[in-house]
This record gives sequence, structure tokens and C-alpha cells, in this order.
Amino acid sequence: MKIGIVGGGSIGLLFAYYLNKCFDTTIYTRTDRQAKIIGAKGLLFEKNRQQETVQIKAESFLNWNGEEDLTIVAVKQYHLEDVLAQIHERMNNKVSFLFLQNGMGHLKHINKLTAENIYIGSVENGAYRAGDRHVCHTGEGVNRVAVYIEKNRSLLHDFIKPLSSFFPFVMEKNCYEMLIKKLVVNAVINPLTAILRVPNGELLTNPYYREIFCALFKEISRILYLEDEQAYFQHVINVCQQTSKNRSSMLKDIEKNRKTEVDSILGYLLEEAKNKNIYAPLIHQYFTLIKGKEYREEGN
Amino acid sequence: MKIGIVGGGSIGLLFAYYLNKCFDTTIYTRTDRQAKIIGAKGLLFEKNRQQETVQIKAESFLNWNGEEDLTIVAVKQYHLEDVLAQIHERMNNKVSFLFLQNGMGHLKHINKLTAENIYIGSVENGAYRAGDRHVCHTGEGVNRVAVYIEKNRSLLHDFIKPLSSFFPFVMEKNCYEMLIKKLVVNAVINPLTAILRVPNGELLTNPYYREIFCALFKEISRILYLEDEQAYFQHVINVCQQTSKNRSSMLKDIEKNRKTEVDSILGYLLEEAKNKNIYAPLIHQYFTLIKGKEYREEGN
Repeated sequence: MKIGIVGGGSIGLLFAYYLNKCFDTTIYTRTDRQAKIIGAKGLLFEKNRQQETVQIKAESFLNWNGEEDLTIVAVKQYHLEDVLAQIHERMNNKVSFLFLQNGMGHLKHINKLTAENIYIGSVENGAYRAGDRHVCHTGEGVNRVAVYIEKNRSLLHDFIKPLSSFFPFVMEKNCYEMLIKKLVVNAVINPLTAILRVPNGELLTNPYYREIFCALFKEISRILYLEDEQAYFQHVINVCQQTSKNRSSMLKDIEKNRKTEVDSILGYLLEEAKNKNIYAPLIHQYFTLIKGKEYREEGN
Repeated sequence: MKIGIVGGGSIGLLFAYYLNKCFDTTIYTRTDRQAKIIGAKGLLFEKNRQQETVQIKAESFLNWNGEEDLTIVAVKQYHLEDVLAQIHERMNNKVSFLFLQNGMGHLKHINKLTAENIYIGSVENGAYRAGDRHVCHTGEGVNRVAVYIEKNRSLLHDFIKPLSSFFPFVMEKNCYEMLIKKLVVNAVINPLTAILRVPNGELLTNPYYREIFCALFKEISRILYLEDEQAYFQHVINVCQQTSKNRSSMLKDIEKNRKTEVDSILGYLLEEAKNKNIYAPLIHQYFTLIKGKEYREEGN
């Protein structure tokens, strides 16, 4: 099976390392420069302070033409529209996709694709891109995957099976529920840790932050009409405890003056709140605070 | 005229320097240590990088007995209850006071005092305590003063007049309005700058922060039933612009792991909101964020 991975960020590089063990894998990067560095020097993978360099095919995304059996799209939500526009121009109807974005906003874009199979994934592995060709696997978890459109039922099975012992995928029945579950986690933990500049665990150990954590969760729950609210709440608590010493991706983005994923997380919730005519003062507040931080980091 | 100043913080030291030029002034400090340092080495005053050392009488507050014609209470709001309890024990009814606290919470404590004269002040001078005996006058403004109780009408006149050319006091008619005006400024600027860790001016130049600035002002205005809302708003804008490069006192407190004045500022507003049954999600949010920061700084 041939695999294409679009995106040379932390998740793209992480997937490239593991998938290349079983499949003929090519990573497609936004810049020609990054593809050349990976092609020349190999991919440097790091886990528990052990490093390993592997050879892997790397190309500029401009050279993607849909020849692989499965294309994994691992770009940030805010780059997805551009990437999809180019995919549309160069794809054939036999192409299959796995999308790995956070949030929910990508579903409306994916809707317009006419592909053989479309899968939606939710990554619970932590990774960090230390350089153009250097990825660190910092948190081991599973990858969740659900069917969005499926015409050829054997593809996903053939993809998942050989990976099961070292990079496991868990099948989920409902892609909406799967994404909502991650959205709720991200919508509570990311903005609060980014504004307060604290590791995840402090949201629970500091009684004042915990109060805000609960209030924000409640607002999110109302907007998403969460049925089993208590189960979702416990899930956010669990993730927060399990990752208590981690700094969230949004906090890292803010610290490194990068654009955050706030649009696809709180932005999506604000749109939902508007459509459903629900008052959401806290979400609006944290959305605006993060946008203000981004504005600042853009050099204003 | 004999003047006593209770409190060896930035405002206490600043007032001691200027008042000592005209009056027989004694500064009463919380610690015996600070009084001894000032007594031995003098008060070091700094303005525009020019330094000057002056001799001034300094005593532990334990030695205060109300012998001065006017006692100026320049302790933080959160120390006021303790200080007043001791004043009650040692005062006589001939004592006069000038209180310089931020916020509104001190009015209810002062209510219980039976003194000859009670004045309320609002300091628009910026000062910074660089050491036990070292104060920097960083922002030149006026001191506003209003009558709370007055039995002897000549005292305030005799106090203000000799200072007018170099440390001016402006008489205000209504102490409540005077304090509200400063409260509104502090309630908008202090919490936002402390959470965002930005100088005052950025609240206006960053369009996202400015949006929050306006929303927070509106919530405060509703709680205080501000009649001329536009005038108060313009006043906050003016102060923000005039002090655009300053870091607010609450930001400095947070940065230096000190207790903030949030209880007497946002805490007072929350109590008002509760009494008036007004929903105040933003004030509640920023109050809790600041309390969380304080909790952290207490070593939790």
C-alpha cells in the first residue's frame, strides 16, 4: 500500500515515521526546502531521549497528484482550505483520505470532496517538531478513526492492521461524537492554559482556576447539547490529570509566537452558539483574549 | 502642624517626603526594622533619576498614639481593618484622619470612627518603593481630597495651602463620586493588564484587548448605575493613554508575587452586583483569574 502524508508539522512527521515501517510512504511538505532537508538527511525521530534517523521519501506538496492509495492530511485547520483547493485540482476520484484536524470546522470543507473513501481521525499522541526533519514523540496514546464516506471497505482494514502492535488505531462508530469529545477537551484546556501560562494540571489543583474550568465546560456543554454531560466532564478531568505536566499546544503556540487553532476550537463553538442563539460570555471572552495574543505576535 | 503617616509603602514614603518640607512629620511603619532603617539612614527620594536623602522621624506603628493634628492612613485596603483596630485602642476624639485607600471598601470601616475630621483622598501620583527607605516618584499628578466628616473646618485648609506649589491637593465635593471615578479606572485597567501582562496602552492599541476593555467597562457601568457613562468611559481612555507605557500596580503585584488589591476593586463590584442582583460574568471571571494568580503566588 502506498501512503501520502500532507503536512510536515509534528503530526505529519510522527505519522511518517511509524507508517514508513509498513508502507511505501511519501511526506509532502509545504516548502520545497523542508522536503529537500528530509530527503538529504533523513527523518530524525526521538522518543524517551533515544534518537533514530530513517530514510523517507519527501516531496513538495506541489508534486502531490493522488497516486497513493491513502492520503493523510495532517495540516492545521487554518491551512486546510488552501490544501483542499489544490487537492481538488489534482485529484482523481479513486483517491482516499484520512483527515487529522482538530475541531469540527473541517467537516464542512470535506463535505465537498468526491473521493473513494474519507476517514476522519483524532490523534491522541503527543508530538513536538524540534526542527524541519526532527520530531519528538512526547506522549503515547492511540489514534482514533471513523468513517465519513466509504466505498471500498478493505482499505482501512489493510491500513490499520500492520500498525496495530506499535502505532494503534481504534475504530470509532461516529465521527461527530469522536471529534466532539476531543473538541471539548481542547476547548477547556487549551485557552485557559494559554492565557494563564500554566501546565494542564494546574487547572485542577488551583481552586480558582478549577472554578473557571468548570464554568467554561458548562458553557461548552450547553452549546453542544451534550447528553451525557458528566461523562464528558470526567473525560476532560482525566485528560488534564494524565497530561498534568504538559504545556498545551495552544500555550506552546502563544509562547512561540505562532498562530493558534483557536478559530477551529472556540471559533467553531461561537458560531454554534450564534446559530443556536445561546449566550456564551466566557467562550467569547477567551476567544477574544487569544485573538489579542495572536494579534500581538503578528508584530503589532 | 504635626502630621503622622501610617504605612511605609510607596504612597506613605512619597507623602512623607513632600509633607516633611512643611510640617513636623512622622512616618509610622508596620515593622520596627523599616522605621530604624529610615531613622538611621534617612529617606531616599528619587525623581527623574535625581536622588536626594532627607532626615525624617520614623517610628514603629506600635508607637502611634494620635498626638499629631492629622494622621494620614496610607496602608493597602487589605491591611486597613487591622490598622483601624489598633487606632481605635489608642486614639482620642481629637484626632483627624485622611484615608488614601483605593476602591470603596474602606468607607464601611471608616464609618465606625468617631474622629474630629475625616477626609478621603484619591492619589493620582505614581510612586514605586524601590527599598525600605527608597521611593521613586514616577508619575506626577494631583491628590484629590473630599470631606467625609468635618468638625473643624480650618484643618484641611492649613494642611493643603503650604503644599500647593509642589504637591497640590484638589478639593472634591463628593467623596463617593471621587472614589467611584478612580474605582472605574482601576477596575478596567488593573485586572486586564495583570492577566495579559501588558502595559496600559496596549489595552487600546490591540483591537481585541480594546473590545474586552469596552465590554468590561460596560459591565462595571451597569453595576455602579453610572449616570454620565460616556464621561467615565472617556476618563478611563484618557488615563490609559496618559499612562500608556506604565505597568499597572496589579500587574506589578502579580509579577512580584505580592497580594493584589483585587478584593477592594473587583471584589467590591461583585458585592454590589450581588446586592443589586445584576449578572456580572466578566467581573466574576477576572476576579477569579486574579485570585488564582494570588493563590499560586502564595506558594501553592
